[in-house]
Amino acid sequence: MKYSNNIKIKNQNLTFTNHRNRGANLEEDINMSNEYYKIINRAIIYKKPTPIQPTLIHYNQDKKKIISKAYFKVPSTTDYNGIYREKYIDFEAKETKNKNFYPVRNIHKHQIEHIDSIIKHGGIAFFIIRFSCLSKTYLVKGEDFISYINNKKSTIPISFFIDTAYEIEESYNPRLKYLDTIDKIYFGGAFNATTNQKN
Amino acid sequence: MKYSNNIKIKNQNLTFTNHRNRGANLEEDINMSNEYYKIINRAIIYKKPTPIQPTLIHYNQDKKKIISKAYFKVPSTTDYNGIYREKYIDFEAKETKNKNFYPVRNIHKHQIEHIDSIIKHGGIAFFIIRFSCLSKTYLVKGEDFISYINNKKSTIPISFFIDTAYEIEESYNPRLKYLDTIDKIYFGGAFNATTNQKN
Repeated sequence: MKYSNNIKIKNQNLTFTNHRNRGANLEEDINMSNEYYKIINRAIIYKKPTPIQPTLIHYNQDKKKIISKAYFKVPSTTDYNGIYREKYIDFEAKETKNKNFYPVRNIHKHQIEHIDSIIKHGGIAFFIIRFSCLSKTYLVKGEDFISYINNKKSTIPISFFIDTAYEIEESYNPRLKYLDTIDKIYFGGAFNATTNQKN
Repeated sequence: MKYSNNIKIKNQNLTFTNHRNRGANLEEDINMSNEYYKIINRAIIYKKPTPIQPTLIHYNQDKKKIISKAYFKVPSTTDYNGIYREKYIDFEAKETKNKNFYPVRNIHKHQIEHIDSIIKHGGIAFFIIRFSCLSKTYLVKGEDFISYINNKKSTIPISFFIDTAYEIEESYNPRLKYLDTIDKIYFGGAFNATTNQKN
């Protein structure tokens, strides 16, 4: 399976051009990057749907189900998972307006436990954390994140990200080149289409 | 990482005992099996939340978000994914009341395309299909399913399942021993805790 970073995207319901600004949020950037990576056949990574519990459902005139009462549930896992270079990929993405630290309370305990389990089962699990005021987005290995906060820390200073995490390069397309970061950290180098993937 | 099939499940919010009957639906059986597999640390496999699009949200007296209008979206991927023996696992589960065939129209075209992509990326992707009136549940490899229906077939006869698919054994706990079926088909044998999994 081959891909090229220069591939032209045609006939797709995507509007890469209109969204390119620094104010775009992290979730949108990741979703667009994932769509791009899917189109060029590099990885299959999706955001899981937001867990919603319907409590009241009725049918409209067209006999279509309409939910008339529902509530948001606490997610039991992370936001994103999928497959890349034959490996299971799992991550949570968060952004903060703080400039000096990331507040750990924004990540649920069972999400951290989930990341830990995935690593133990041989998957690649990490956090993508954006400091929006600094225009910096970091990939933090799950192992590094957990080992840091296991010392009962409730905030992670920016220095940790500078020293221990990996800054994700941005581009026009994909917006966040986070698979390149994964290549570097987890695979020891760039993807080689001729040897590394099934056809 | 070790596990035992005889592990006792304690302090869990599970009601394995009350549900054991042939009338239980497939989704429930798979979810319970996945909870069991997770507890014994054998695999991490989740059902993705049902994709729901909220269109109207308000806040109640406790400032909690309440959705007052929403609709079900067509799922773009499969129902289940996760990690087992370091491999990415992805599947769709369906049941039918037919005794003689499975109607392919019940599976969305993009779900089949998704299964196909996952296989090409080196993942394990399949369908679990239950014939509820026959009390038989089969695992069909994605490859086999796709190659059969690519001949423009709109139904798959029961003979295909008997000849080409793998019947999933049921038990008290887990209800569906589908990881044993995966062991047999994809790994050529049973799981060996000492050699096959990271610690």
